[in-house]
Amino acid sequence: MEEQTTELEERAPSTLQIVEGLLDYGLLQDAADILAPIHEADAARVLEQLSSGEQLDIVRHVSPEQAAALLGQLNRDDAVRVANAMDGEALSQVLDLASMDVAADLLRGLPWGYRREIMGGMRRADEVASLLSYEDESAGGLMIPDLVVLRDWMTAEEAIAHLRGSKPRAEISNYLLVMDRHNRLAGVAHLRDLVLASATTAVRELMNESVHAVEAGTDQEECARVMAQYDLTQLPVVDENQELLGLILSEDIIDVLEEEATEDMLLLASFGETEKTLGPLRRSFRTRLPWLLLNLGTVMMAAAIINIFESTIAGAAFLAVFLPMVASQGGIAGTQTLTLVTRGLALGELPFTSARRALLKEAALGVINGVLFGLVAGSLAYWWKGNPELGIVVGVAMVLNMIVAGLFGAIVPLTLKALHMDPALGSAVLLTTVTDVAGFGFLLLLASWLLV
Amino acid sequence: MEEQTTELEERAPSTLQIVEGLLDYGLLQDAADILAPIHEADAARVLEQLSSGEQLDIVRHVSPEQAAALLGQLNRDDAVRVANAMDGEALSQVLDLASMDVAADLLRGLPWGYRREIMGGMRRADEVASLLSYEDESAGGLMIPDLVVLRDWMTAEEAIAHLRGSKPRAEISNYLLVMDRHNRLAGVAHLRDLVLASATTAVRELMNESVHAVEAGTDQEECARVMAQYDLTQLPVVDENQELLGLILSEDIIDVLEEEATEDMLLLASFGETEKTLGPLRRSFRTRLPWLLLNLGTVMMAAAIINIFESTIAGAAFLAVFLPMVASQGGIAGTQTLTLVTRGLALGELPFTSARRALLKEAALGVINGVLFGLVAGSLAYWWKGNPELGIVVGVAMVLNMIVAGLFGAIVPLTLKALHMDPALGSAVLLTTVTDVAGFGFLLLLASWLLV
Repeated sequence: MEEQTTELEERAPSTLQIVEGLLDYGLLQDAADILAPIHEADAARVLEQLSSGEQLDIVRHVSPEQAAALLGQLNRDDAVRVANAMDGEALSQVLDLASMDVAADLLRGLPWGYRREIMGGMRRADEVASLLSYEDESAGGLMIPDLVVLRDWMTAEEAIAHLRGSKPRAEISNYLLVMDRHNRLAGVAHLRDLVLASATTAVRELMNESVHAVEAGTDQEECARVMAQYDLTQLPVVDENQELLGLILSEDIIDVLEEEATEDMLLLASFGETEKTLGPLRRSFRTRLPWLLLNLGTVMMAAAIINIFESTIAGAAFLAVFLPMVASQGGIAGTQTLTLVTRGLALGELPFTSARRALLKEAALGVINGVLFGLVAGSLAYWWKGNPELGIVVGVAMVLNMIVAGLFGAIVPLTLKALHMDPALGSAVLLTTVTDVAGFGFLLLLASWLLV
Repeated sequence: MEEQTTELEERAPSTLQIVEGLLDYGLLQDAADILAPIHEADAARVLEQLSSGEQLDIVRHVSPEQAAALLGQLNRDDAVRVANAMDGEALSQVLDLASMDVAADLLRGLPWGYRREIMGGMRRADEVASLLSYEDESAGGLMIPDLVVLRDWMTAEEAIAHLRGSKPRAEISNYLLVMDRHNRLAGVAHLRDLVLASATTAVRELMNESVHAVEAGTDQEECARVMAQYDLTQLPVVDENQELLGLILSEDIIDVLEEEATEDMLLLASFGETEKTLGPLRRSFRTRLPWLLLNLGTVMMAAAIINIFESTIAGAAFLAVFLPMVASQGGIAGTQTLTLVTRGLALGELPFTSARRALLKEAALGVINGVLFGLVAGSLAYWWKGNPELGIVVGVAMVLNMIVAGLFGAIVPLTLKALHMDPALGSAVLLTTVTDVAGFGFLLLLASWLLV
């Protein structure tokens, strides 16, 4: 038995160093041999820290079975890149050995012509083709097809005999779906209950008729939400006529949940696409650059606002002291709202029908916090600079900016959701631009009226 | 069969409105009766949008079985608050009907004296007591104890007979743990393989000897990580002698993953504790206030920096235009690094032994982006204001602030992790304070030397 926790942390980096060393000396086969006895999940983690070329070298030098397992464990971008660079015949052989949802997922990522070539060389092309019609991130793309199902009129004994007689590759789940005479999903039976029941009990009496199911086009995030909400270990996928297409397993949904949370978190922090902490420097640079460029562009708007009021500042330089205060407080309040609403939408805690309610609440919080911090900031400004008009200017600008922050933080993810876009796109870059522009604008406009 | 997806979104708010209406009229029993036929997960979602007093009213008016199910589905804070306010005798009865990990979790949240009273009234006090010694957020607190296990010398037929003979309440998992003669975990067998094997096959031949297990004290986030990494549907929990204590199920780990991701996301966005989008306004206000206050305090530091250089700004008001540019660009770059490193640590993608490597990479990115954006910003400043010294001041301040942002964004979560604190605590409030103070400081200090 393995002591996973400690071993993993200590082994991963040293294995990586050895593999990198061997690759540097061109000892490709030796590097592959080092990874062969390691669990594919650990090996994939090591692989993810190598360059694309090195990943390809390793995958080419392990056995086809190992290559199939590795491609299934690598993150999708890396796996598709490697598959795309592999020799066609070798890839066909590897995909035949992979699980069908992995194979379909990789094939979806290949250019159309190459995909046809690969499928032409696969023995299991038909099985994979049935999955290819579904979107990668939908229930259809996640499910395992080709299930063994029971019939509601079988006895427990007949059901077990049916399981024994089913073809070997079919996935036999521990939760067995039961169909009625019309081929429609009638319920779900535990293998455990089937084994423990007396031989003549009908499956109909053992099964639970309340089954949660999703249609094939359902987004994977929604599937994850249903499984988390109802503590399901499997989720049947049906077509529009309630006919069974396949089954999503909780193992696969765990990966989806981690992926989606990471994606949202990074998007909120202004990343274009997912990035690995220890991935190559060049890729990190490319991933972050567009958002930094965008921010430079948007922050120019804030700078332009200040530029308009340059003479106001020249006449009252102490105003510059309060610019970051008003802008930053709005930035934090807006980030709070933005993150909460985005996460609420992702978890399904905030049904879209309650959008108005959430918006009103955030607006109300904006007013309350605005008045509170407006009073505090205004008093501070008065006490610090001994200027009552300055106190009023700072206080009112704070109230207005906090309201803008609350409204904007809620409206942006809700609007994106209404437009069927990812709510997390309303990221830090956009939010802080708005709170900066509004904060500077309110403060300097009021100051130009009241102070100078 | 239910059509879950659409029904949920449309039913949740209207049920909530009906329940709220009935509660307003004091019709507590009617409100409880509305929730009774609904799946407990949906009912709990409705309950979470009510006040604590209303939650208690509902739980008091449903059957003890329903109360147990509801407490198991409510978020922990609400469930503990309700349990604490319940009558002792009623609570003992409800906890006897709850699953043991839920009961232990709630008892942990009660004051010591009340907990003793409740356990005194419980029939299953002994079973729960064995779980209470573990931390709520540890493997021991998540596991289901009291497993039916197989012995490696049993035949398939004997194993199934053993399962049939086991006491009814014991959880029979689909993955059966197998112990050797020394009571140590020897492997794991699929119920499926047991059923499909010939009667005389030994369990030893059917089982998989490679089992991932964790010790009872392991943090739940680490457990989730191991299960996600190796696609496990169950994770055995052992003591320091490798003797089996219990089993963690993937259903429970899905909740943990969502909780931890939400917690990290909200912490990064400067929330003290988890908050519900549609929760009561007063609670939202209280949750966010401390961080807004903290930000007001920290932003005063940035204001103080500007205050020191007030005469510099009075002499060159156009400097104020470039203050937000340098600060904001550092803020975004720092947020990117902070979020990526925090998420990497949470997912276990960034083993602590690679901390130095991550730090060097982020510092290198800081230098590269700093030089790049320093050149761009410096050229912009020169082109805009026709002042070459201003171009140098803005460019150099940008380089320095981007390096600070990269370093700080990486050092803070890594340091928190080294101190065994939550890396996500290095939140937006702290990060933007540093990038504001550094950005303003560099720009104004350089300006006071070179420009005025």
